[in-house]
Amino acid sequence: MCPDERWFPSHLKEMSKAECLELLASHRVGRVAYCDDLGPVVLPVNYVLDQGTVLIQISSQSTLAHHLRSGSASFQIDDVDDFNQSGWSVLVRGDAVHVDDADLPAGDEDRPHAWAEGEHSFHVRITPHDISGRRLLPA
Amino acid sequence: MCPDERWFPSHLKEMSKAECLELLASHRVGRVAYCDDLGPVVLPVNYVLDQGTVLIQISSQSTLAHHLRSGSASFQIDDVDDFNQSGWSVLVRGDAVHVDDADLPAGDEDRPHAWAEGEHSFHVRITPHDISGRRLLPA
Repeated sequence: MCPDERWFPSHLKEMSKAECLELLASHRVGRVAYCDDLGPVVLPVNYVLDQGTVLIQISSQSTLAHHLRSGSASFQIDDVDDFNQSGWSVLVRGDAVHVDDADLPAGDEDRPHAWAEGEHSFHVRITPHDISGRRLLPA
Repeated sequence: MCPDERWFPSHLKEMSKAECLELLASHRVGRVAYCDDLGPVVLPVNYVLDQGTVLIQISSQSTLAHHLRSGSASFQIDDVDDFNQSGWSVLVRGDAVHVDDADLPAGDEDRPHAWAEGEHSFHVRITPHDISGRRLLPA
């Protein structure tokens, strides 16, 4: 069952998968989520959309790397306009796996670049099994 | 183990719980997350901070209501400045429970107000067992 939360003002509009992918392709920061024993963890990360998958770059020493080495993960992006009470949200549900440098896109501009100082040698690819999105148009 | 992802540029700064609560108090839209059989679901919702707990208002007919009636849930807010490559993120981890109207704040302005058209009679309170946050200052 897909989440179908009425989240925002009138004219809640489901987005097509193509629209969702367009939005994913045009942004560089989103939120990765995984589930541990206590429930979900949601953290912002830098990413790129690479052939329909979400590629993120994180620190190999982080708890995030530990949990995203393999297993279920989600990725979410949104934009909310408080003034107009409108916005959109895209949710990717899929499987995360650590990828070697050899499996990264060739071009440096096609790879994610973490803004953070420090080592970021750990790449994770989230391959979607479901992509959904909603747009809220102002009343 | 708390998530310790180096997410952003230099000067990654842990926020105090008080700072996190200030940010939670000053925003009205965030992301609620729960875990189902396929992993995490992350969706934007309207909320208010009510005496240190996150109070959200959703449709009683939604999948979200079904999952948040009771159980682990997280709540996340952030702000990212693409231009300055800076931002902050706050994560609340806790337990969600459906609350009756009798357990809501008395004042209408102290209750969450969903922007969406349609019925929103289902209130959920997330009581935190952990609140963490990080601020990224531009390099």
